[in-house]
Amino acid sequence: MDSIHRHIESNVDRSLDTLFTLVRQPSVSAQRLGFDRAPQLVADIFVQHGFEVQILEAPNNGLPSVYGYASADPGSFRRAQEQSGIDDPNAEPPTLMLYVHYDVQPTDPIELWETDPFEPTRKDDRLYGRGMSDDKGNIAARLAVINAFREEWGGLPCNVKIFAEGEEESGSPNLPGLINNYADILTADACIWEGGGRNAQNHPLIYLGLKGVLAVELSVELLKTDAHSSYATILPSAAWTLVNALNSMKDPTDDRILIEGFYDDVRASTPAEDEALANLPDDSDEWRQTFGNEAFVSGLGSEDLPRKHLFMPAANVAGLDSGYQGEGMKTVLPAKASAKMDFRLVPDMRPDDIFDKIRRHLDRHGFENVDLNLISGVHPFRTDMSSKWAQMAIETSEETYGKPAVIYPTMAGSGPMYDFGGTLGIPITSAGIDHPTHKIHAPNENITIDDFILGAKNIANLMQRFAAEW
Amino acid sequence: MDSIHRHIESNVDRSLDTLFTLVRQPSVSAQRLGFDRAPQLVADIFVQHGFEVQILEAPNNGLPSVYGYASADPGSFRRAQEQSGIDDPNAEPPTLMLYVHYDVQPTDPIELWETDPFEPTRKDDRLYGRGMSDDKGNIAARLAVINAFREEWGGLPCNVKIFAEGEEESGSPNLPGLINNYADILTADACIWEGGGRNAQNHPLIYLGLKGVLAVELSVELLKTDAHSSYATILPSAAWTLVNALNSMKDPTDDRILIEGFYDDVRASTPAEDEALANLPDDSDEWRQTFGNEAFVSGLGSEDLPRKHLFMPAANVAGLDSGYQGEGMKTVLPAKASAKMDFRLVPDMRPDDIFDKIRRHLDRHGFENVDLNLISGVHPFRTDMSSKWAQMAIETSEETYGKPAVIYPTMAGSGPMYDFGGTLGIPITSAGIDHPTHKIHAPNENITIDDFILGAKNIANLMQRFAAEW
Repeated sequence: MDSIHRHIESNVDRSLDTLFTLVRQPSVSAQRLGFDRAPQLVADIFVQHGFEVQILEAPNNGLPSVYGYASADPGSFRRAQEQSGIDDPNAEPPTLMLYVHYDVQPTDPIELWETDPFEPTRKDDRLYGRGMSDDKGNIAARLAVINAFREEWGGLPCNVKIFAEGEEESGSPNLPGLINNYADILTADACIWEGGGRNAQNHPLIYLGLKGVLAVELSVELLKTDAHSSYATILPSAAWTLVNALNSMKDPTDDRILIEGFYDDVRASTPAEDEALANLPDDSDEWRQTFGNEAFVSGLGSEDLPRKHLFMPAANVAGLDSGYQGEGMKTVLPAKASAKMDFRLVPDMRPDDIFDKIRRHLDRHGFENVDLNLISGVHPFRTDMSSKWAQMAIETSEETYGKPAVIYPTMAGSGPMYDFGGTLGIPITSAGIDHPTHKIHAPNENITIDDFILGAKNIANLMQRFAAEW
Repeated sequence: MDSIHRHIESNVDRSLDTLFTLVRQPSVSAQRLGFDRAPQLVADIFVQHGFEVQILEAPNNGLPSVYGYASADPGSFRRAQEQSGIDDPNAEPPTLMLYVHYDVQPTDPIELWETDPFEPTRKDDRLYGRGMSDDKGNIAARLAVINAFREEWGGLPCNVKIFAEGEEESGSPNLPGLINNYADILTADACIWEGGGRNAQNHPLIYLGLKGVLAVELSVELLKTDAHSSYATILPSAAWTLVNALNSMKDPTDDRILIEGFYDDVRASTPAEDEALANLPDDSDEWRQTFGNEAFVSGLGSEDLPRKHLFMPAANVAGLDSGYQGEGMKTVLPAKASAKMDFRLVPDMRPDDIFDKIRRHLDRHGFENVDLNLISGVHPFRTDMSSKWAQMAIETSEETYGKPAVIYPTMAGSGPMYDFGGTLGIPITSAGIDHPTHKIHAPNENITIDDFILGAKNIANLMQRFAAEW
């Protein structure tokens, strides 16, 4: 792999040119900004890297995804086998899916950016711009690997599919429909997810799953107009009803969610996952510094936090809205009250099932008058830590970075992993260029060239082993 | 009293001129609009009606009140005695306080006014303008009575004090302090409150009390910054804490407030009050039409509503505020949450005592982290229905209007009655020009000339009896 690694290093300026071209093109899905040109630009770049390309339209007038396919080269495939000490003339090259997204977060608050977010800017060893890390940096690092194999080994060691989503930063609302429409071309043997890279201690960081999320709005309207608050003696109150309904859903003492059947489908952790949890660094001091919280929920100690954070579902109140919220007082009995809630889900919970259980809970507890509206739902997904693909990714990262890997069986956040891992049945691991200093989603998003080169080398190593040993 | 009544009728245009002069002068206390001229205008009009006048400054840079005093005329006092068939040469004329306010509600929503709110306009039998009823109409009706006694009987049958407050529509925040500063000149034997008049069935309507109100803000801040909602697994939530704290304060089944000691000082109703409650008209259908509520709290039937509405305290949630309230979803764990609450109080509850009890309740139930902030407090007050003054007002109104009186031992709303009735110890009844069609506080506020004349006659009758029989 030395020639591949050297190629990645010596061609880094070319790879960064590609990255800069991507960053210069706005593609803010939340604002539908830049999508007159962004999909075609991504398609053109994929074509330049030897892919056959299709722009895949999303249902419901969603923003399109860009899909590329490139076949394995027989010589490169054999060279990958040799690298692994394998000689199997009957083997066929397997197919690798690269999941990325070309849309980016909005630039707000724009006044905190020190450079133009859409004009890539180098300061010292860091490159600044929106999407520089998340996820255009990951796209460019994968393309650097493609170039290296093509120019050093004469082609790709395996079949490669690349899928660049256009709505990831908006919660992938139309991805399930798109996957359903294009399932025949999106199958693969394994998938490298966007992200991953190094943690704050520069150990390789791998995550194998994402939580699901169910977002809902609860709303109550019991009067046709606000009343003077002197009527609080006799008129029903939307605000009190909402408070009572919310309160019925979670035990404040032990933080247990009281919706009947909520935990039914929570998958038990495996011994390997338990061990991974035990080996995770203690982030409790960092969280306390970031958020200023005096304690954690239910008085949990730092040793209990990883399991609760990663393996348990959660019920969050993201917003409360009723009546008068200004200075001083308005003596009003509000006609309406509403709450935004999001429920983080772990395998094998399903958003539609949890939605039904919330509705039943409300009805059973006398809250038939609380409307429950679906905002969005994403399924959870975890790849088995003991699987061949997870183990291959872990071992490869330890070789590349020369340090033990920090393995997250799942992240606490959500994303559309289930659409590939569950719907299409593809095992998934992450491998990328990430580092906690990259300020993704925030002003002054950046990467270092070191992170970019190391991430690309690791992906190249993983691609070689996958091609040879799958 | 025939000559007095004829004088009120034949001089109604002059009385309405005075009313129109008052309405033309804006005096919106919430916006401090018009107070460069309004206090002096009111003072000048009082002087024109024979009062010695003082403008009483309010503490805390509040808006001033206007106070007038006029002594009884011995001849008029004797004539009042004759009218009641009394001949007591040793009697001294008693002193009557007239409580009114010269400030008005804002004109919002201005687009719903069909005429300029500060330009009195007659359409058919109604006179339109802000304050035409509440409370400038009540001021002008009292001045019509003053004119009648002075011009027909040669003077007033009793000593009269008139107190026109400047901040009633803003919750009288500085009235307790003002009363404290001027207690020596504000004493009286009895007081006629603003308002009262006729109900929808044109029966005389009398109210003898007003509830108190304690307005507070509960606020919770558990993080120094909003967190991504994936942290809801482990970080404390201000919104959940607020929901739990509020929920602990009231039983949703029977609507009972669970704050320890909350009901300790609720005064038992008297047999006379019980009878008055039983005689009140059934407003439940009207409320249902106005508010569109399917039921009343705790499934109360219409026969139970008057007691709950008038004689029980209430805890209202006037506002809820936390996190994201826009369209769709933002996956945020909000750092802060807050609620506005107002507690309606009945005698002998005290706002400061209830505030302390709420604080103790929160502390006892584990909500030390919920801040409780006082916004405002007003004491409740009820005049004893069996008192001489209440009975005199009831009998007089039945004579004036020729129909049985509808007696509200208290209204459900709040006002500064306690400052006169409690602090200064003056028994209070209402007598005025009100009618439910007047749209007070709303666009197109109005009165009819009939209401004005009838209200003035009733006040004249009451003043005569008070002078003679106190």
